[in-house]
Amino acid sequence: MIYLDNSATTKPCEAALLAMRGALETDWFNPSAAYGPAVRAEKKMTQARRALLEAAGAQSAELTFTGSGSEADSLAIVGSAERFHGARRVLIFGGEHPAVLNTREQLERLGHTVETFPARRDGVADLEKLAAALDENVGLVSCMQVNNETGAVQPVGEIARLIREKCPGALFHVDGVQGFLRVPLAFDQSGIDLYTCSGHKIHGPKGIGALIARKGVRLNPRIEGGGQEKGLRSGTENTAGIAGFAAAAQWLAAQPKRFETLRAAKLRLYARLRAEIPELRVNGPDPESGVAAPHILNLSLGVRGEVMLHALEAEGVYVGNGSACSTHKREMSAAFRAMNAGRQAAETAVRFSLGMMNTIEEMDAAADAVIRCYKTYAAFQRR
Amino acid sequence: MIYLDNSATTKPCEAALLAMRGALETDWFNPSAAYGPAVRAEKKMTQARRALLEAAGAQSAELTFTGSGSEADSLAIVGSAERFHGARRVLIFGGEHPAVLNTREQLERLGHTVETFPARRDGVADLEKLAAALDENVGLVSCMQVNNETGAVQPVGEIARLIREKCPGALFHVDGVQGFLRVPLAFDQSGIDLYTCSGHKIHGPKGIGALIARKGVRLNPRIEGGGQEKGLRSGTENTAGIAGFAAAAQWLAAQPKRFETLRAAKLRLYARLRAEIPELRVNGPDPESGVAAPHILNLSLGVRGEVMLHALEAEGVYVGNGSACSTHKREMSAAFRAMNAGRQAAETAVRFSLGMMNTIEEMDAAADAVIRCYKTYAAFQRR
Repeated sequence: MIYLDNSATTKPCEAALLAMRGALETDWFNPSAAYGPAVRAEKKMTQARRALLEAAGAQSAELTFTGSGSEADSLAIVGSAERFHGARRVLIFGGEHPAVLNTREQLERLGHTVETFPARRDGVADLEKLAAALDENVGLVSCMQVNNETGAVQPVGEIARLIREKCPGALFHVDGVQGFLRVPLAFDQSGIDLYTCSGHKIHGPKGIGALIARKGVRLNPRIEGGGQEKGLRSGTENTAGIAGFAAAAQWLAAQPKRFETLRAAKLRLYARLRAEIPELRVNGPDPESGVAAPHILNLSLGVRGEVMLHALEAEGVYVGNGSACSTHKREMSAAFRAMNAGRQAAETAVRFSLGMMNTIEEMDAAADAVIRCYKTYAAFQRR
Repeated sequence: MIYLDNSATTKPCEAALLAMRGALETDWFNPSAAYGPAVRAEKKMTQARRALLEAAGAQSAELTFTGSGSEADSLAIVGSAERFHGARRVLIFGGEHPAVLNTREQLERLGHTVETFPARRDGVADLEKLAAALDENVGLVSCMQVNNETGAVQPVGEIARLIREKCPGALFHVDGVQGFLRVPLAFDQSGIDLYTCSGHKIHGPKGIGALIARKGVRLNPRIEGGGQEKGLRSGTENTAGIAGFAAAAQWLAAQPKRFETLRAAKLRLYARLRAEIPELRVNGPDPESGVAAPHILNLSLGVRGEVMLHALEAEGVYVGNGSACSTHKREMSAAFRAMNAGRQAAETAVRFSLGMMNTIEEMDAAADAVIRCYKTYAAFQRR
């Protein structure tokens, strides 16, 4: 099996499995209890929190564990908007994941106004349009670190500077689910106020996410109760998920060449396909450019995406058809709408997303399979 | 180690560990993806959902997985209250867990009025007071199945009948976190509309809960996004947590004598302590009565709760000091306030909560340890 759908989810790494086993079989106590084994479970959670903050370059910040990246997005956006004084404007990048885009209804119910800003043709947020929209009434800007469909790396540093200049009171939220540890981040120096990440996209388990927040950012909890996570997210802590998430982050962080390794593999696959498939079109930024994430390659190959996906499955190669979240849906995805790509591009798009377990040899085998499928189905379509 | 704090959390059973291992090591794909291994992961999730519905006698109902019991409570209460037409009254049992009690602020922000109804001296909800409060303006009643501190089994059948009689349009939510599979339940025949349960209280993993809802009950999601769980709870599904939760439920459900086994063990412990500790007072219902849950025994033993807890820890016996959620807090807990117990009772309360891994022999050893600690510290206090 060659698995190239790592932006949908990743295989848990050995370090994550081992850490989870420890949490489930030995340190399974309730971290809120007062006796020794429970205090030890709480300490392990504190260590995991510190490890994740360190991996994000966020030693000065605070981290709240949630049940998913989507929940962390909700805590960041709705949780901060509930604390705004009066009605504010919220600016959201049009290419966001639905976990961010679909907070609109809750924001509007709170009396705020939600506006989106578009992408350029390469999937990168249009800074001119954003700059023109920023003013003192903006309470929050949300822009993802890496687009989940196109791999376009968003200019979060530039956006932070624009916010500082034009609306210094506004908060800046970044959904880092597809970027965390695959694109460099120094949270403490970034100008970001709120940063979402998720365990299962970095070879950790599903069911665990986190929101990193600059100290002093005021949030309302989405889930009330026993007051865990300093009152920001009640419910007995998912100690196994937390342990697995932190172990995976440490495993990735210990591989400083990971950016280059992922990028080299992606470019190998791209070069092979470009040489053999004349109809190939890139969706998103030029894969060789600096605004292309090292691990995501979205290509239209002249064959319907679903057809290619299933043909490749028969060859033992697993790829994504747009974002995993929208596989079961018919409408064009947010990223394709935001960069104003045509329906043709969207319908023939295939997403190759790499993880830390892929090898360069797999890229050659995957390219062979894609080219074979292309030749079969493109010829068939032309008849 | 004799672990008697199973209402705080339980040790995961072998069946749960095995199921989680399968989900993490083999079926780790994203259930939303379109290829074979992902479809298999989705099927396993469907099987787990059915197993849990069956364990609750809820074959006609729907089940939404959440990240915790607290989140399921929030989905049930805030999620339904957002759909009410106009301002309504919400009646909440005063002895509820904070996950239910603390939804008050969100309900009030929605324009609803929140009122609580008290317990009798034995910790059971006062039905006369509730009946007097019910009228056509009530939109929701929430009453737990088993109190987490006293083990008082609440009259949910009676409450369902009162609602049908006095305000048939109102929804009835039951937090079953402490009752699920330890007190009989036939959801489909119960008159309950919404039922919360949690994995880690039944020897499953932490970080997974569920809301069971009668078909036709309309809810808003708390967490928006990719539309998982029929749009009621977005975020990639916690497939390992789900598998472990269902496996634990099946393991419990396969032990039909579990109610009697737990009760016999609890009564053995109670009889030994009552015979030897003259100052013993029961907090909650008479442990021998039908309104006492089989697995929870809350006693005031004339020694401060924290002192007893740590003295017992030194003997290898782990017990709870009130509810695990309030260990770090100083104020009197909800259950003690609701039944109007004195401060003295609250300060000297120790909660013994049993799980499916406890044996009757452990009860004798635990009783010996409690009696030894009592003799040491009660004598010390009297000096």
